[in-house]
Amino acid sequence: MIAGVIGATGYAGAELVRLLAAHPQVSALVLGSVSFEGDRIENVYPNFLGKISGPLVKPEEVAAGSDAVFAALPHGVGEQYAKICMEKGIPFIDLSADFRFDEDEAAFTAWYGKTYVYPELRRRSIYGLPELNRKKILELAKQGPVIIGNPGCYPTGASLGAFPALAGGLAAPGAVIIVDSASGVTGGGREPSRSFHFPECSDSVAPYKVASHRHIPEISRNFRVMAEQGGASAPSVIFTPHLVPMNRGILSTIYIPLSPSWQTPAASGAPRPPGKELEAKTAEIRKVYEDFYKNEPFVRVLPPGVCGATNRVRQSNFCDISVHIDQGGSTLIVVSAIDNMIKGAAGQAVQNMNICMGFEETAGLGAVPALF
Amino acid sequence: MIAGVIGATGYAGAELVRLLAAHPQVSALVLGSVSFEGDRIENVYPNFLGKISGPLVKPEEVAAGSDAVFAALPHGVGEQYAKICMEKGIPFIDLSADFRFDEDEAAFTAWYGKTYVYPELRRRSIYGLPELNRKKILELAKQGPVIIGNPGCYPTGASLGAFPALAGGLAAPGAVIIVDSASGVTGGGREPSRSFHFPECSDSVAPYKVASHRHIPEISRNFRVMAEQGGASAPSVIFTPHLVPMNRGILSTIYIPLSPSWQTPAASGAPRPPGKELEAKTAEIRKVYEDFYKNEPFVRVLPPGVCGATNRVRQSNFCDISVHIDQGGSTLIVVSAIDNMIKGAAGQAVQNMNICMGFEETAGLGAVPALF
Amino acid sequence: MIAGVIGATGYAGAELVRLLAAHPQVSALVLGSVSFEGDRIENVYPNFLGKISGPLVKPEEVAAGSDAVFAALPHGVGEQYAKICMEKGIPFIDLSADFRFDEDEAAFTAWYGKTYVYPELRRRSIYGLPELNRKKILELAKQGPVIIGNPGCYPTGASLGAFPALAGGLAAPGAVIIVDSASGVTGGGREPSRSFHFPECSDSVAPYKVASHRHIPEISRNFRVMAEQGGASAPSVIFTPHLVPMNRGILSTIYIPLSPSWQTPAASGAPRPPGKELEAKTAEIRKVYEDFYKNEPFVRVLPPGVCGATNRVRQSNFCDISVHIDQGGSTLIVVSAIDNMIKGAAGQAVQNMNICMGFEETAGLGAVPALF
Amino acid sequence: MIAGVIGATGYAGAELVRLLAAHPQVSALVLGSVSFEGDRIENVYPNFLGKISGPLVKPEEVAAGSDAVFAALPHGVGEQYAKICMEKGIPFIDLSADFRFDEDEAAFTAWYGKTYVYPELRRRSIYGLPELNRKKILELAKQGPVIIGNPGCYPTGASLGAFPALAGGLAAPGAVIIVDSASGVTGGGREPSRSFHFPECSDSVAPYKVASHRHIPEISRNFRVMAEQGGASAPSVIFTPHLVPMNRGILSTIYIPLSPSWQTPAASGAPRPPGKELEAKTAEIRKVYEDFYKNEPFVRVLPPGVCGATNRVRQSNFCDISVHIDQGGSTLIVVSAIDNMIKGAAGQAVQNMNICMGFEETAGLGAVPALF
Repeated sequence: MIAGVIGATGYAGAELVRLLAAHPQVSALVLGSVSFEGDRIENVYPNFLGKISGPLVKPEEVAAGSDAVFAALPHGVGEQYAKICMEKGIPFIDLSADFRFDEDEAAFTAWYGKTYVYPELRRRSIYGLPELNRKKILELAKQGPVIIGNPGCYPTGASLGAFPALAGGLAAPGAVIIVDSASGVTGGGREPSRSFHFPECSDSVAPYKVASHRHIPEISRNFRVMAEQGGASAPSVIFTPHLVPMNRGILSTIYIPLSPSWQTPAASGAPRPPGKELEAKTAEIRKVYEDFYKNEPFVRVLPPGVCGATNRVRQSNFCDISVHIDQGGSTLIVVSAIDNMIKGAAGQAVQNMNICMGFEETAGLGAVPALF
Repeated sequence: MIAGVIGATGYAGAELVRLLAAHPQVSALVLGSVSFEGDRIENVYPNFLGKISGPLVKPEEVAAGSDAVFAALPHGVGEQYAKICMEKGIPFIDLSADFRFDEDEAAFTAWYGKTYVYPELRRRSIYGLPELNRKKILELAKQGPVIIGNPGCYPTGASLGAFPALAGGLAAPGAVIIVDSASGVTGGGREPSRSFHFPECSDSVAPYKVASHRHIPEISRNFRVMAEQGGASAPSVIFTPHLVPMNRGILSTIYIPLSPSWQTPAASGAPRPPGKELEAKTAEIRKVYEDFYKNEPFVRVLPPGVCGATNRVRQSNFCDISVHIDQGGSTLIVVSAIDNMIKGAAGQAVQNMNICMGFEETAGLGAVPALF
Repeated sequence: MIAGVIGATGYAGAELVRLLAAHPQVSALVLGSVSFEGDRIENVYPNFLGKISGPLVKPEEVAAGSDAVFAALPHGVGEQYAKICMEKGIPFIDLSADFRFDEDEAAFTAWYGKTYVYPELRRRSIYGLPELNRKKILELAKQGPVIIGNPGCYPTGASLGAFPALAGGLAAPGAVIIVDSASGVTGGGREPSRSFHFPECSDSVAPYKVASHRHIPEISRNFRVMAEQGGASAPSVIFTPHLVPMNRGILSTIYIPLSPSWQTPAASGAPRPPGKELEAKTAEIRKVYEDFYKNEPFVRVLPPGVCGATNRVRQSNFCDISVHIDQGGSTLIVVSAIDNMIKGAAGQAVQNMNICMGFEETAGLGAVPALF
Repeated sequence: MIAGVIGATGYAGAELVRLLAAHPQVSALVLGSVSFEGDRIENVYPNFLGKISGPLVKPEEVAAGSDAVFAALPHGVGEQYAKICMEKGIPFIDLSADFRFDEDEAAFTAWYGKTYVYPELRRRSIYGLPELNRKKILELAKQGPVIIGNPGCYPTGASLGAFPALAGGLAAPGAVIIVDSASGVTGGGREPSRSFHFPECSDSVAPYKVASHRHIPEISRNFRVMAEQGGASAPSVIFTPHLVPMNRGILSTIYIPLSPSWQTPAASGAPRPPGKELEAKTAEIRKVYEDFYKNEPFVRVLPPGVCGATNRVRQSNFCDISVHIDQGGSTLIVVSAIDNMIKGAAGQAVQNMNICMGFEETAGLGAVPALF
């Protein structure tokens, strides 16, 4: 098949190009760029020299020449290409937020300040978190070409970390779940700005967009859907992203109040170090997580003693999850780690393509994480 | 005066040496080291060449030759020097945990696995967080030589971030307060180990000692004391430290459930971006913080639009605090930033010396933070 | 085939494991470790979980169970396994310096302080820099099992950068060639030490072992061999390695005095910015480099305007080379960039295995460099 | 005195502000900014909050309200303010290249593409490298207000590293001296760009502007002046700057061919590790360096076994120098380390102010380097 990438010169686009070039089912690439149209990909990314080469064409030409199209564009500008793909009858996998909210245009408008250009496209679109929606994606794909709203980076890590607790009734119904996340700087994209200027962000850590990040409604919706599957009322979400001086990776530390039956009553008085009882309860919860993800190729529930860390998933499509209980026994602490550019963007997009096209879901996504 | 430093060759010790060498009241230094006894400080730290120079002597000689003694030693080995200083009648400022728990030996034993060697020393000791205990330190110092239990790095940032909310009744009584912190690698000390080996911790972020870090009882006790001052019941504490690839700094993101009267009821349904109402409430809370700290020389409550970041306090004794409310209106999010080696260790120790010795509290601590 | 790795838990060993696990001709791995014998590789490197798994056995068992053996051991301890492999009739690819000096035991002894244990093994051994010795490796492999002395990391980058100039008569005969290199911290291995402790080496750059690094005799020998092929007398070598706060990569800036016929006489007087004439000469020299490497799969001579940089070869087996002339026209400046763990260690070892085993030379080495 | 800073919001300007705010002779600051005129310095740099505060005014107002003026502006735009200061009779310390070339407008034009606006100002201007020109600065200052052409960052480190060898006749007359330098990213200034975007420059090292950097003529001129003082013909200079993922610091590794009388003849044949003879010769050369700099407050010739490293001069005005000889005995290798923002810019500017104003030369420059 021929894969097309619109927006191939941004970071997510370039990662897509890198993954697709090594994909066993992809025979050729058509690459589009608005900023560098007329140039060549190996000039923009000389790291590709000798491996990946080709002209950067107009978005329309990408759609015309491909069997599946990825779009890594800013929010609110790519619907037209989705439309073309639907008319042509090929999948459109969108890495912007345009198709992440299905029919809920109000949420999209409230947080992104834009409206749907072609609302009817949502009849063919689906939120592409395979661990949540694989069945729905497959069903929709049977009926014709689909549009994938590829998940945001933070929502991917947060959702995979919380799902088993929500679906399994571990989370206290209607609780406030806190997602405290740290991202590498590639998450900010390729455009230079003060925030991502080396001397301003290296050797430092800081939160940003506290309680106002656009990924809040996406995380919140995912949590609600999963809680409803577990028969519980929707939790509230508090989300704080932090910028960390590293290139790749998102680590999310997720605090989930346990429902009473899952709590371990602490002795009254001052806190004491966790003992055997908490260890046993943690093992029980880990078992719930392992069972939930036992058929998932890209989620690794880590063994006891191993904690989520971004360098263990580097350049892979894995989401690593470790489970912990606070020393008071009342709160589940889940740590999830992904590579923000792979499972958080380009890798998940390829995973979605694989599902839509009927390929092996892991095709082209077999990279073993290198620690450094 | 002559200042002595026992354990001068560890990172906290070396920072003490650097600060004391520039202190206007300090005329000479006596430096002790177990690992490098017989060597010279400028050989161990060639960055000191031409500025700070001197032999590294036995701990006993430090106590004998100084007017005030700092100890930057492992936990559980320094009480003997405190005893000597008390007998000699000079202040002893201890950077280990040995004197952080006052009479509560049980907490110390439960978390540090040691017992008090000279329990009676606690009659002369006090927990040295000036913003909490300045009056008590001054009173004790009037009565004779004091032992300062210099606070842990994480507890300093966490406590300063939460105090105004606890003392002012903003925090829901008995709530679970989550402290999610990120530290630079100097926090792990000078001894090489796998965790702090460059290739293992650079370009990555990960939590460690989740729900089991020794700073939990110290944070918990501080929160309780302050809540009691505000007439409220003690909160529970959940604390997760993270290691971040930077040298200095601790950033704490603190989640404090608001008491009902301080909440801003959100519209029901899906989350919406924060609006004017939350902004107004945030301003109200910022005012509480500003009032609480209006006489504190080292706490900066940041203006609207500026968020805590570790590179803004680099090499200074400042604790920067920014306040935020979650988009649902129920939870106060406080961000505090300190330099872990200064306000989190050596700087605060000097601040404590200044208080004990009757110097200007800010003496020797005037460094303006450099952004990089 | 079954590949064996002795010393699988060091950094070079672990990279070998990662590459071999994805190698199309390798059906299974046998992994040996002295430090972690009895444990499992996925416990030592949890990043391998779900992808690579297996017990860590004794070195003898590796040799017994494999069709080719790699050794990533300290210098001077692996000859015995080479002997076993020769007796068994399978290739032994050694990443230490033990087989890099062929018959010249004196050089090995002078710089490494050890003697050859089984000198006769050198009859079956060859220095494994394919761009220098491919033919010889193939010839030796035809006659029986071979021992590969896999090149050092610095010598690989330095040699590939200088070869075309030496072989092509560009370098002034007998000149002093300066190799100024910068390495990422993985080059120091997995064992924690002060030099590679994060706070001591991050946010800093420094040379080490100035004019005394063990790679000097290897670089010197390679330069001599290549100069002799070009009919010129051997150059002298000055080599200064630097430690840079990054994980991977070696950048070498190589200063080669040009022979008179290749010089561009500068106007007398103060230096002026390079003009068209130098650009033309640079293009001529680039052509020499392109021709020299036109059949090499892993050397990329960079186009005009692109300079060698370590992030363009990340995790790949490429050596990138850019050529420049000093503004005075007298000296060729070559910049070469490799990934120290791949072309500088594990990747080149796999390349050597491919050659010895008659596989496609690029098998298992197709990774496209990711910029970050 | 009142110090004025034009261009106070760039990195060099902000460092000037930080240093001057703590200067014992400076009672007030007047800060100018083109980009942020009308704003306040503590809004642009919130790290200054509570310590440094004030409006950002027009450049003209800075000149009008100050007793000495610093300009940290782009090249070619600040001469008008120099003129105003000369008319007003106060010193003007310029951090751009405008006054670094004295009467040699041709060099300035060739490399910077600009001409002198007021050529006659050069009668009052002097190149401000105190270790080279202190006497001349003092003489000129006696005659009236002076303009200081504050040296470039790279030329400072390179010149201080080479001077004793050039002045003392150690360098072979007319030799090619290679300066291979590595700089932290603050050297690129505060303006965001692709080159200094965190994901493009972190975890990587690369040269830039090979053989074409604008500091070449400045280094070359300094070397020539010093060689002439030593009675030798001018050397040629090859200069290669590299970008390293750190914030501050410049490390220069300088290769100086030794004049025959200073060489240590190596045994013929392959290189051998350096022995006692080279150690003795190195000590001799170190003595030359120590003597040359014995009265310089900011140059530290490092003792045997200690090599120049940027983290040993962090935030200080020191230039650290270590001397080495190549194993062949023919070339002196000097390593110099400075903080590019201090001795390489703002610190040296303050040093020049101190000289011009008759203050203690070290006033305000006493910071002890912190290792991290």
